[in-house]
Amino acid sequence: MLIYMLALSLNYDSVLLIPPSSTRLARDVMICVVMSNKVTPRRPSGFNEYLPGEQIEFNRLLDIVRRVYEKYGFAPLDTPDIELSEVLLAKGGGETEQEVYRFKREGSDTDLTLRYDLTVPLARYVAEHESDLIFPFRRFHIGKVHRAERAQAGRFREFYQCDIDVIGSNSPIVDAEFPVIINEIFGDFNFGEFTVRLNNRRILNGFFESLGLGEVTRDVLRTVDKMEKLSRDAITEELHRVGLSDDQIDQVLEFTAITGSNDEILQSLNGLTIDNPVFKQGVAEITTVVKTLRAMAMPEQRFKIDLKIARGLDYYTGTVYETVLDDYPQVGSVCSGGRYDNLASYYTKTDLPGVGISIGLNRLFYALNQEGVIKADRQSPAKVIVLPITESQNDYAAQVAASLHGAEIPAVLYTEINDLGKKLRYASRMGFSFAVVIGQDEVANSKVSLKNLETRTDETVSVDELAAKLR
Amino acid sequence: MLIYMLALSLNYDSVLLIPPSSTRLARDVMICVVMSNKVTPRRPSGFNEYLPGEQIEFNRLLDIVRRVYEKYGFAPLDTPDIELSEVLLAKGGGETEQEVYRFKREGSDTDLTLRYDLTVPLARYVAEHESDLIFPFRRFHIGKVHRAERAQAGRFREFYQCDIDVIGSNSPIVDAEFPVIINEIFGDFNFGEFTVRLNNRRILNGFFESLGLGEVTRDVLRTVDKMEKLSRDAITEELHRVGLSDDQIDQVLEFTAITGSNDEILQSLNGLTIDNPVFKQGVAEITTVVKTLRAMAMPEQRFKIDLKIARGLDYYTGTVYETVLDDYPQVGSVCSGGRYDNLASYYTKTDLPGVGISIGLNRLFYALNQEGVIKADRQSPAKVIVLPITESQNDYAAQVAASLHGAEIPAVLYTEINDLGKKLRYASRMGFSFAVVIGQDEVANSKVSLKNLETRTDETVSVDELAAKLR
Repeated sequence: MLIYMLALSLNYDSVLLIPPSSTRLARDVMICVVMSNKVTPRRPSGFNEYLPGEQIEFNRLLDIVRRVYEKYGFAPLDTPDIELSEVLLAKGGGETEQEVYRFKREGSDTDLTLRYDLTVPLARYVAEHESDLIFPFRRFHIGKVHRAERAQAGRFREFYQCDIDVIGSNSPIVDAEFPVIINEIFGDFNFGEFTVRLNNRRILNGFFESLGLGEVTRDVLRTVDKMEKLSRDAITEELHRVGLSDDQIDQVLEFTAITGSNDEILQSLNGLTIDNPVFKQGVAEITTVVKTLRAMAMPEQRFKIDLKIARGLDYYTGTVYETVLDDYPQVGSVCSGGRYDNLASYYTKTDLPGVGISIGLNRLFYALNQEGVIKADRQSPAKVIVLPITESQNDYAAQVAASLHGAEIPAVLYTEINDLGKKLRYASRMGFSFAVVIGQDEVANSKVSLKNLETRTDETVSVDELAAKLR
Repeated sequence: MLIYMLALSLNYDSVLLIPPSSTRLARDVMICVVMSNKVTPRRPSGFNEYLPGEQIEFNRLLDIVRRVYEKYGFAPLDTPDIELSEVLLAKGGGETEQEVYRFKREGSDTDLTLRYDLTVPLARYVAEHESDLIFPFRRFHIGKVHRAERAQAGRFREFYQCDIDVIGSNSPIVDAEFPVIINEIFGDFNFGEFTVRLNNRRILNGFFESLGLGEVTRDVLRTVDKMEKLSRDAITEELHRVGLSDDQIDQVLEFTAITGSNDEILQSLNGLTIDNPVFKQGVAEITTVVKTLRAMAMPEQRFKIDLKIARGLDYYTGTVYETVLDDYPQVGSVCSGGRYDNLASYYTKTDLPGVGISIGLNRLFYALNQEGVIKADRQSPAKVIVLPITESQNDYAAQVAASLHGAEIPAVLYTEINDLGKKLRYASRMGFSFAVVIGQDEVANSKVSLKNLETRTDETVSVDELAAKLR
């Protein structure tokens, strides 16, 4: 007869069935089970993190964004992750409140919320420090935000936003800087061609005013924003439902169907007999933006006036932007933004007009990773590994590594006790390009053996030559 | 008789006393008060943020840290700000739980905690991704952590930690890398001389074992850690209270009083007739560390064996580090760490020995700012501003700015409508070094006027020469 011992607890890793024949084993296993009362290492659902290879690539993108933002004179800003709910949610709006991480810490009455974007903290910052800031104020902010959205593929509850804004300027020349900045960043990303789509809310608002749409202008804007996704029939139905006449609907459809080169669209807009000052200001602004983009040598094929771009948010009042990767249109807009009249009306009486854009890198990275575009084969920021063959070469290897570091060459010193084959296997798996191998001959001759792990060739070089060779 | 109208509400900015003689004014002011129903822009107590000039300096320090970490082959890591409480607080310990931001979001049962350091998330990460990582695993992590500590000067509830760890190596050569890295970072910081103090917990533990201290070893360690702050009498009293005999106390005091050069201390340690294997291993390890530091050209005056360094945490088992700024000892240790036997025992059965250090930059920055050491006079990452005198020069100025950006020279284009005096005043207040001024003559001759705002000199140069001049 076979009797089994059963060790079971919700806290234990597993249920064990132990035959009594192996009592000694059984006791050892029992002890092991009791000892293995571990917590499963896991993250909250919707919270992402990268493996080292991916993180290196993700940081490469973050670095490009930051370098370009700084080149255009945006100063860094960093605000707390946590804000007072009363301040952060001053604008109200149920939608926002449901999606935020709002909480009171146990034993505390302070009502706190994790920031859900970088714009409201910017508004709070500018209003709080108004007297210490110099306007126009150009800032970039690269930071994490948190949204308690339903978790789904490619949607995260924690993600980076990379924002720039210019606060306190009404110049349309400033509006033109943003497509140029997008052009530099996405050019450096090297994910193929892309297009910055431009419009101006005044053009839409002025046109709708001229049609006498009045209060439904917002609803019509929202419908226009969906034009690319919906059929003509669906759009017509939606505009009917909002209360537009057949004639008004025809005019909206005709207007938003204006296409052609940037110059052709500008010509069409100037040819329209719309006697509305808002419309005229919008056309004048977009004309200046286009002229300035050309002065700034923005490639013509990378920016495109598109009268269907509305950027739903009520917030925008002038120029609006969207950016699409030509080869990956399904990703949607990878960088959007626009001009607004008043950043911080909830906090200050001062009018603070501004213009800005935001890049959501995690979603872009996720989509491109799915497409196999992201190469993540390097596990180390260094390309060089220094490998003493035995412990006797450790000191010499430490000197060699120090000389590389002194020459600003990133390098790893590997002194685990292993045979050389294992050491070289580590080097390959980690994605190092070069191994500097040091045995007793190398020490005796003040040399190193430099292995190129990609071409599988090696040569003997002196320590003095090594840094120059690797550069 | 004077009658005042009183406008008062808790939500209004102010209480107004309005004399009836000025009824029109009164109505206007009333409207203004009603309109000014603003939320005061403010942060939760203990949450810090910098003005742009400070932020530029703070980021300069962060950049130095990151550059050096990467040079030594540490891969970037970034884990969620939020962890499951069950996982993050697996270790338990009431002290920790009181200081963390632990919460459940309204309408959710998930028990979450903001990370309070970067070590526990590292343990969770390594255990979770164990099979995907290659060991030894070298990672750096620069990120914010949150502690619900009592707010006080220089202590923040949100601050950056800059950590590096090597996981899965027992090599004392690796231990020697950390003082070298600290030396590079604090050398680049340029806050004067500094000293990395070294010890090895095995030396202390082995010595205490040899004294037969047994269970009170931990208490004695904690007392040793306070030796610099307490008088000899206070130390004696504390050791008495813990239960040490007079003889044991004398021996502890004598041992921790061993001083001299690094070689002298090593000599003293080797001269002691302590027949304890733990002690002997500790002495062997610190001897290797010192030898390797010299091979790596670490300046001798910048590292110092100090047998009083214990680093209170039970966690450490081998080499321990502390770093003191020689000119600002009151700041305390600005970079500490050490070797531990088991990083992730709460999550995995795999033994994961490691060694690491952490720099808390915000506290250092605060202290040095108080001392007036931090220069924060540049409000922009760019040193150059391009100033068209009137709108007619905007296009040409846009071309000039684009040519600077093309040459990777950070520059701001300023097109606000202002007189030149105001434009130059903006340039000075912002801390720009150069203004590129463009009037109609400059446009006509394809030149620019380059003003050095520091020396207050100017010269006329062609657009082609400009980038080279500014470099």
